[in-house]
Amino acid sequence: MAKVLCVLYDDPVDGYPPKYARDGIPKIDRYPDGMTIPTPSTVDFTPGDLLGCVSGELGLRKFLEDAGHEFVVTSDKDGPDSEFERELVDADVVISQPFWPAYLTEERIAKAKNLKLAITAGIGSDHVDLQAAIDRNITVAEVTFCNSISVAEHVVMMILSLVRNYIPSYQWVIKGGWNIADCVERAYDLEGMHVGTVGSGRIGLAVLKRLKPFDVKLHYTDKYRLSNKIEKELGLEYHPSAEALVEVCDVVTVNAPLHPETEHMFNDELIGQMKRGAYLVNTARGKIADRDAVVRALESGQLAGYAGDVWFPQPAPSDHPWRTMSHHGMTPHVSGTSLTAQARYAAGTREILEDFFAGRPLRDEYLIVAGGKLAGTGAHSYTPGDATQGAQEAVKFKKAS
Amino acid sequence: MAKVLCVLYDDPVDGYPPKYARDGIPKIDRYPDGMTIPTPSTVDFTPGDLLGCVSGELGLRKFLEDAGHEFVVTSDKDGPDSEFERELVDADVVISQPFWPAYLTEERIAKAKNLKLAITAGIGSDHVDLQAAIDRNITVAEVTFCNSISVAEHVVMMILSLVRNYIPSYQWVIKGGWNIADCVERAYDLEGMHVGTVGSGRIGLAVLKRLKPFDVKLHYTDKYRLSNKIEKELGLEYHPSAEALVEVCDVVTVNAPLHPETEHMFNDELIGQMKRGAYLVNTARGKIADRDAVVRALESGQLAGYAGDVWFPQPAPSDHPWRTMSHHGMTPHVSGTSLTAQARYAAGTREILEDFFAGRPLRDEYLIVAGGKLAGTGAHSYTPGDATQGAQEAVKFKKAS
Repeated sequence: MAKVLCVLYDDPVDGYPPKYARDGIPKIDRYPDGMTIPTPSTVDFTPGDLLGCVSGELGLRKFLEDAGHEFVVTSDKDGPDSEFERELVDADVVISQPFWPAYLTEERIAKAKNLKLAITAGIGSDHVDLQAAIDRNITVAEVTFCNSISVAEHVVMMILSLVRNYIPSYQWVIKGGWNIADCVERAYDLEGMHVGTVGSGRIGLAVLKRLKPFDVKLHYTDKYRLSNKIEKELGLEYHPSAEALVEVCDVVTVNAPLHPETEHMFNDELIGQMKRGAYLVNTARGKIADRDAVVRALESGQLAGYAGDVWFPQPAPSDHPWRTMSHHGMTPHVSGTSLTAQARYAAGTREILEDFFAGRPLRDEYLIVAGGKLAGTGAHSYTPGDATQGAQEAVKFKKAS
Repeated sequence: MAKVLCVLYDDPVDGYPPKYARDGIPKIDRYPDGMTIPTPSTVDFTPGDLLGCVSGELGLRKFLEDAGHEFVVTSDKDGPDSEFERELVDADVVISQPFWPAYLTEERIAKAKNLKLAITAGIGSDHVDLQAAIDRNITVAEVTFCNSISVAEHVVMMILSLVRNYIPSYQWVIKGGWNIADCVERAYDLEGMHVGTVGSGRIGLAVLKRLKPFDVKLHYTDKYRLSNKIEKELGLEYHPSAEALVEVCDVVTVNAPLHPETEHMFNDELIGQMKRGAYLVNTARGKIADRDAVVRALESGQLAGYAGDVWFPQPAPSDHPWRTMSHHGMTPHVSGTSLTAQARYAAGTREILEDFFAGRPLRDEYLIVAGGKLAGTGAHSYTPGDATQGAQEAVKFKKAS
């Protein structure tokens, strides 16, 4: 029997379950590329319910306890006296979400003598020191595609909101004003602009497809070039480097995983090569951008706006400068944990656990590290190494209410 | 020589001109249907500049004064002692914008003995009593298509923002929180939802096209059915009535002009026929929805969210309930006055004036009323009658800062 340690975010301040705004979520059978959505034997939750918080338990308790496993769920993840660090020493499986990441640093992995499997309930396993997982032969798996479309929608929403100056205009409503000139002196149409993505995997491609009918000029850069058919269909211009892309774009969106090659890619130098007044949207990982370079560029006007939902560390401290910098449209890390996405990644986590406990191979596309090396999706999207440095800056977060 | 009276919104609180966020706007030659953008002989402004406020003067002063005309610009439009009402008595031409509408009621038209032409610098001439204009043989013209794409972008932005719960999540950032569960307990993906538009003219069709790659089911209703080719291409389901449409939609967007047939269309009854937890986005005209019915539906949960940028009257009083109702994502009336749109409607206004002063016919597609009857676009989109009732509720608005 195994011990499964699961780190989830806190319940809503008004208690669990919330009063749901809607009666369900649309049913989807396949992802856009034809891959099937998760296929556990069954699920013990109602799709559309809040599953990603402590009381939601990813809908896994019955399944795990019926099979005789120990199941520990906590939101207390940071610092040496955290419940996560205490329970980790004899855990066989760790489940964590990018929105509230349980950082699996080299030090923690060294203490987790029984650890065999680290599951990301979501996408993006940079909170795990992949090099240490490779060295210790720990399997790292994530629920590939589960929330790629969720994030792509967030990207398009944020691009439109920055370009059209949505939130400042909303705020004039709240303040009781009707200051049209103040709302629109920074408001533009997206039509006709040059928009580029750094990364054209599942999310980047979904963003490009969604932007096509906005009559923009689309650009992309990636290690892997898209097919000629897709390039033609979407009218894409390929650039061999991020530098070449940003020079011609009015809007740049980052849709690449965090690994040593992308860490701090958007620093003073790269941002300085962008067009004056460009917009940057980063829903990938906070560390892909240099925190203070972004603040400086917004201050100087080099960037007209910055939005995204990824920070480092997470939770972002209450004095993180991205909370108060000018012309931002940030959210906490939520794009991939819509109620719609939760149903899929909860099911995918169960699928992975079912296969793991039955000794069956996991779906290849879910794998990041397996057999002591990058594997599956991991071999395609990551480089070996570690992007968790600085995770010790994550401190116990006092919940705001 | 003529007197041209132009009502524009106030300058920015920090003065004119603002510090621009960007160095220009994309150049566009034609609208999506092939219609050319405005073709004045020349313009005296830089595209991308703030033209819609009092100091912006729609870039018209030099052109009008060089030709010997009198040009009066004011933002003071409401009440019998307003500059608009004083100057109206001997004006030959009135120019007004929907964002800051100079209501041309029957009473005002009766006092405007010289009035021959009322130009809407934008789209939507419901602030003019069209019946009175027909009776007095006043030409009413608007700059058709100038900001249709601007509005369509606003609609898609607002749909995504409501469904994904953007603004409340942004507010957790500002409050210093990291309350993921509180952000997402009302957050969904748009993918798979049923989205319908009431009205499939230039804006409605542009919205449908932009939503197509979001993998939603698209619905529409309109007096005029779209071609079979477009229906197939976009996978549209046509409904003979708004009632039939709202029953099956998760998101409804209104893209119809305001005239007697659409006034207060979204009342308790029609909203009651929507699915529980549906979203309503209205960037058409405030009066198409019943103000208090919307508030009640948000309160009861019948609507999960409401957004838009149109109110009645405009400016909306500082105690208008839509400013404070739950789950709204309102802006002041700005969607059609992005800096991008302003360049087009300022040029279009000049084109109309050039033709008018030269005695040439105006572009047919710009016409709403001509020769004592609905004409051009007006004959297609409006019904005779008056939708200005209640305009006297518009009172002098104290500028917030």
